[in-house]
Amino acid sequence: MRDLQVGLIGLGVVGTGTFEVLRRNQDEIRRRAGRGIAVRMVSRRDVAKAREIVGDAAEVVADPMTVATHPEIDIVVELIGGVERARELVLAAIGAGKHVVTANKALLAVHGTEIFEAARAKGVVVAFEAAVAGGIPIIKALREGLTANRIEWLAGIINGTTNFILSEMRSKGLDFGSVLAEAQRLGYAEADPTFDIEGVDAAHKATIMSAIAFGVPVQFSRCHVEGISSLQAADIRYAEQLGYRIKLLGVTRRRQHGIELRVHPTLIPATRLIANVEGAMNAVVVHGDAVGTTLYYGKGAGAEPTASAVIADLVDVTRLHTADPDHRVPHLAFQPGAMADTPILPMSEVVTSFYLRLVVADQAGVLARITGILAEHDISIDAVLQRESGEGERQTDLIILTHDTVEGRMDAALAQMQALPTVLAPIVKLRKEELK
Amino acid sequence: MRDLQVGLIGLGVVGTGTFEVLRRNQDEIRRRAGRGIAVRMVSRRDVAKAREIVGDAAEVVADPMTVATHPEIDIVVELIGGVERARELVLAAIGAGKHVVTANKALLAVHGTEIFEAARAKGVVVAFEAAVAGGIPIIKALREGLTANRIEWLAGIINGTTNFILSEMRSKGLDFGSVLAEAQRLGYAEADPTFDIEGVDAAHKATIMSAIAFGVPVQFSRCHVEGISSLQAADIRYAEQLGYRIKLLGVTRRRQHGIELRVHPTLIPATRLIANVEGAMNAVVVHGDAVGTTLYYGKGAGAEPTASAVIADLVDVTRLHTADPDHRVPHLAFQPGAMADTPILPMSEVVTSFYLRLVVADQAGVLARITGILAEHDISIDAVLQRESGEGERQTDLIILTHDTVEGRMDAALAQMQALPTVLAPIVKLRKEELK
Repeated sequence: MRDLQVGLIGLGVVGTGTFEVLRRNQDEIRRRAGRGIAVRMVSRRDVAKAREIVGDAAEVVADPMTVATHPEIDIVVELIGGVERARELVLAAIGAGKHVVTANKALLAVHGTEIFEAARAKGVVVAFEAAVAGGIPIIKALREGLTANRIEWLAGIINGTTNFILSEMRSKGLDFGSVLAEAQRLGYAEADPTFDIEGVDAAHKATIMSAIAFGVPVQFSRCHVEGISSLQAADIRYAEQLGYRIKLLGVTRRRQHGIELRVHPTLIPATRLIANVEGAMNAVVVHGDAVGTTLYYGKGAGAEPTASAVIADLVDVTRLHTADPDHRVPHLAFQPGAMADTPILPMSEVVTSFYLRLVVADQAGVLARITGILAEHDISIDAVLQRESGEGERQTDLIILTHDTVEGRMDAALAQMQALPTVLAPIVKLRKEELK
Repeated sequence: MRDLQVGLIGLGVVGTGTFEVLRRNQDEIRRRAGRGIAVRMVSRRDVAKAREIVGDAAEVVADPMTVATHPEIDIVVELIGGVERARELVLAAIGAGKHVVTANKALLAVHGTEIFEAARAKGVVVAFEAAVAGGIPIIKALREGLTANRIEWLAGIINGTTNFILSEMRSKGLDFGSVLAEAQRLGYAEADPTFDIEGVDAAHKATIMSAIAFGVPVQFSRCHVEGISSLQAADIRYAEQLGYRIKLLGVTRRRQHGIELRVHPTLIPATRLIANVEGAMNAVVVHGDAVGTTLYYGKGAGAEPTASAVIADLVDVTRLHTADPDHRVPHLAFQPGAMADTPILPMSEVVTSFYLRLVVADQAGVLARITGILAEHDISIDAVLQRESGEGERQTDLIILTHDTVEGRMDAALAQMQALPTVLAPIVKLRKEELK
């Protein structure tokens, strides 16, 4: 059988990694797939640079649309990133009857419904293992490995940049700004790190996993997104004293009347495996009703880890290339006719426990007043930590951990506390997850 | 389309779990699979007991062979365990053109080659996710998720009983015997725990993973098997002092001239995620050349976690039931015609670093003599720990960590040390893995 012909759109870091791993491991891959996979054509604006990388092994073109629609290409791999241009190219490839493999989380989180519907109508596959958590086969685990389960929740460290920054802040006691600068020097953070540090990248990935876990459409606009740029070293330190680590988590959870979908800094018990995932590594915890808690860990980014996921998809598509579409795993894990319309809950209805830090006047009755407000709102307290104030200091830090409560209720209580004259600064509110 | 008809052989813990999860989650499973999966028939010697469990939902028979060959059954699930009877039943089911799902690691580690060949000849699937690490989808990760990679090594905590015992020995400072008794009381260890504690169960699973990782036939008889029954509390304590945890690992590693395949207690740096897997949990670390190090964690046994894996296989088989066998993932990950005959290396050729504990006479020159022997054998030392001997004591413990060396050379050096008059007891030798 002739080799499957691949067209690579984008020959940057991941594209080059994909090209090189396919070349280096071609025998191993053929032994598994039963068929060779050859890169027939690549596109990159800088054609000369692309020729340096691929040599004579593949045709090089400047225009990605040539690759997307070329009659000799069986599978198009989209690795240019961004949303609008990528959407055009992917839809064009689908329109031309090509299978598509993409690492583009933003594209799928925003336009997934349109793209998967177009693919279904054409009878082609859009595979996207590389879009979430790099080389970790988490999409496969969710879509295929855990099919027996009613998935209850999942939570993941799915952005390496922010996890690197949080690891450094904790281990070196530094503040956000100086660690970010270091991360940029080391290449762990982009020159414009907004998408990473503000949680947008993690939100794209959480949105995709949520859809697959619960059989709902991708709804990025409903995802609550909070990053780490305002996180303070003091809170990491207090969390540590209380036995917790702070991680930027993407969380999605099934509730009785809807689905929670949110990205925010989160306290996790330090004894949990995921709390010990350090540096730029990724990990996703998935809880299913039958299997219990499972965890998947690995490199969430980088040329070859991402290439590993892209090529796993290529092999899957190779196997099913000529098979009946009915035999394929559905794009979003559930059959298109069996998707649910369960709503994504607003944050006011989300249930978590909380970490609160209040800067309060160091005087009698303050703690009683604050705990009184919590009691009035029926919010029960798990732990209290009050920093001893130094000689002559007239204010102190008061840390409160609560039990589970609805966020709307918490916010109402916080508004009352914030209005107290003895509360001297904006209250810090962080969410806490047990992830048992 | 009519529901796929399943025959369950064995309605013990896992069989009952499978029956119940299939019933409880039938809608969720159908939404994913696009087709219902129904248990049509079950076999159990105690027919009355089986009827209590399944009610009218399925036919109950005493003779498993009836299930294996019944014309209305599409897929046979073998959950009786054991080797010879299970082999007959699985081969009979294959002979009758049934797909087979099994959780039977012993069967596949010993007779896998025969069974997979019979299945290939008949064009049916033998699926076995549940045979390794319970609910963790590690077979799927190895066979499908990491197809891009040249897998270099994998190492797993793949026996919950022994991990529970080791966790308890460490956290409570107890010796093996008393923890085993406690584990038996709690149901974490069988009345006859030999298969678990002597490493045989882990060796079955390591053998299966090795075959899939490297594309070699299953060769249980070549697996080096060493359990934890002679492990002493003192060594767990010394390892801890040196920054290591001791776990029973199944390890398989690609070397230039062959494959290492071994189960033994192993020192692992305490900072590694897998070193922090406690209690009866399982975890497998896989290192691929492209993806780097990945880890998969979850419950390795129990009714519903194992059922989760059995049902994931049922869904996979459902999808491919009527598809061309060429489109299936090969049983052992690599195409039958592309298997390698790379040999399993004898232990004398295995390369690891070592932990040695010597009880030595507390007198001048002992350390020099011992380190001299290591130097003569070109074994370099990573760390030395000498217990301060108490008042009037005439012997002491000497702990040595070595760098990587070939085991044959280590054994030659040990024989020389053991012969020294100043070495007062049998030397304890444990292997150490960095698992980076």
